[in-house]
Amino acid sequence: MTKCEPTCVVLGGGGFLGVNLCRRLASSGVRVRAFGRRCLFPRDLPGVEWRQGDFCDAAALASAIASCETVFHLVHSYMPQSADLNMADDVRQNVIASLALLEISRKLKVKRIVFVSSGGIVYGPTLLMPTSETAATNPISAYGISKLTIEKYLQLYEHHYGVTFRVLRVANLFGPFQLPGKNQGVIAALISCALHNKEFEMWGDGSPIRDYIYVDDVVDALLLAAADKSEERIFNIGSGQGRDLHQVIAEIEAHLGSKLAVRRTKERLIDVPVSVLAIDRACNILGWKPLTPFNVGVKQTIEWWRSREI
Amino acid sequence: MTKCEPTCVVLGGGGFLGVNLCRRLASSGVRVRAFGRRCLFPRDLPGVEWRQGDFCDAAALASAIASCETVFHLVHSYMPQSADLNMADDVRQNVIASLALLEISRKLKVKRIVFVSSGGIVYGPTLLMPTSETAATNPISAYGISKLTIEKYLQLYEHHYGVTFRVLRVANLFGPFQLPGKNQGVIAALISCALHNKEFEMWGDGSPIRDYIYVDDVVDALLLAAADKSEERIFNIGSGQGRDLHQVIAEIEAHLGSKLAVRRTKERLIDVPVSVLAIDRACNILGWKPLTPFNVGVKQTIEWWRSREI
Repeated sequence: MTKCEPTCVVLGGGGFLGVNLCRRLASSGVRVRAFGRRCLFPRDLPGVEWRQGDFCDAAALASAIASCETVFHLVHSYMPQSADLNMADDVRQNVIASLALLEISRKLKVKRIVFVSSGGIVYGPTLLMPTSETAATNPISAYGISKLTIEKYLQLYEHHYGVTFRVLRVANLFGPFQLPGKNQGVIAALISCALHNKEFEMWGDGSPIRDYIYVDDVVDALLLAAADKSEERIFNIGSGQGRDLHQVIAEIEAHLGSKLAVRRTKERLIDVPVSVLAIDRACNILGWKPLTPFNVGVKQTIEWWRSREI
Repeated sequence: MTKCEPTCVVLGGGGFLGVNLCRRLASSGVRVRAFGRRCLFPRDLPGVEWRQGDFCDAAALASAIASCETVFHLVHSYMPQSADLNMADDVRQNVIASLALLEISRKLKVKRIVFVSSGGIVYGPTLLMPTSETAATNPISAYGISKLTIEKYLQLYEHHYGVTFRVLRVANLFGPFQLPGKNQGVIAALISCALHNKEFEMWGDGSPIRDYIYVDDVVDALLLAAADKSEERIFNIGSGQGRDLHQVIAEIEAHLGSKLAVRRTKERLIDVPVSVLAIDRACNILGWKPLTPFNVGVKQTIEWWRSREI
């Protein structure tokens, strides 16, 4: 990516990860366009060209991609739980729309697509922990199936047409600009509840183990994936460490100096008991590593929340 | 399946494999309904209830499935080559329509779905030959991706709703009732060319190695899969042996006693060099084995062609 041309577009640039990525790109002097249905933080994207549009609108998408060599594909129009209730529409809005993106990218001679997939969901209830990229992929949620299907079409387009790609299978992301709600972003939800003196609803007993990764580290990985020249295509991006929800709550409580009110509700069918990613490939091939210890990430996230008064 | 009730429906019952399966079921006294866009051999389905309809028409599909405990899903509205040219529509007509089938099956309390997937295409260019069911699945054709995606949704519906399924990843099928055309069915195409003194168009140099399996053996596997109570879900169904096109041509020439006229054309991007299936799982778990030697299958297929004057 050269510095004085619009060579880079972030699809889903108005969301949590997208805003973090756009801010990093813009602050490095890269001219970046952000495309999305809505921008959650319009004042936080200085130097970023904002383009409002729907991922399913092929004409809007083509216009957003024009002149760009690199496409960051961060869009998914459903959350894990809602995708299960709208499987066919999830396929239409994500898989079929990604096929349109691939066709546009081929015609506009895009050089690299970096796609954010889900490290926590595409593998499903695997026996091997931490899970490497070569593990079997048997998702137990529609969200995981549509992510996986998009990965397969990316492979096909590189095979047929030479549109190169990288897939990052990202673990449980957290950090500044993540808003709670829509049944994801547990750390944002916990902090929000704590700061607003609300009860936190915990699905099940809090025992599921997850791999939490700070958003700045994921942005590092996205930039490395955009420039990667290796033979690998799919990279797990996580901390490589597992934590259950009780440990997460304890860490947040330690920073806040107070106890959280937690109420247990029914567990979700889509939750796998353990999800921890093996990250050796990203470390060895991309030269990436997670630099932010969990407690530092939590501290910075709480500081961001306090600075915003959301 | 009890013998005096319509407990069984074959989706795609008018096609090559469907006709063979329906004939076997009917001749065993099973009352069977066949559903499809068209029936290629209407006079060859005595005792079979024929129901014309489109797989994408959910109301027609629901009506065809009513009263059936077992659903054989043999539909795919595109051929491997044409799917690559119509990827989004392939997803709509096959993946999204299969999601409707799953939803209907759940509501109508279907007990078992047997889905025919592709052993030659879902794996892609794998390094391991013969290929077992645990090999990585990286198809290099859209047809393979949509088959694989449907497999994943079957897993999801069993996980969420208890609709049990079996997937047969079938190798290169051949036998009576296969018609040439639509870029598949190479043995039917060869025999048809030979009997009509036409030139056969061979993609590439004829070196790709395939696993050819006679249709009667596949029908055996479908019936065993419908009744299977094991923990396995996915079974390769092939001969376990590889043949290149020159060997196939030599076998047909030996039976006909004459030489075939062959013209070489450009190879297809979707062809993997070698595809041979490991069939140990089907042998050990289903108690299945391929009973028809290749030369016997070819002989019977030629006899069928001669009896029909197609």
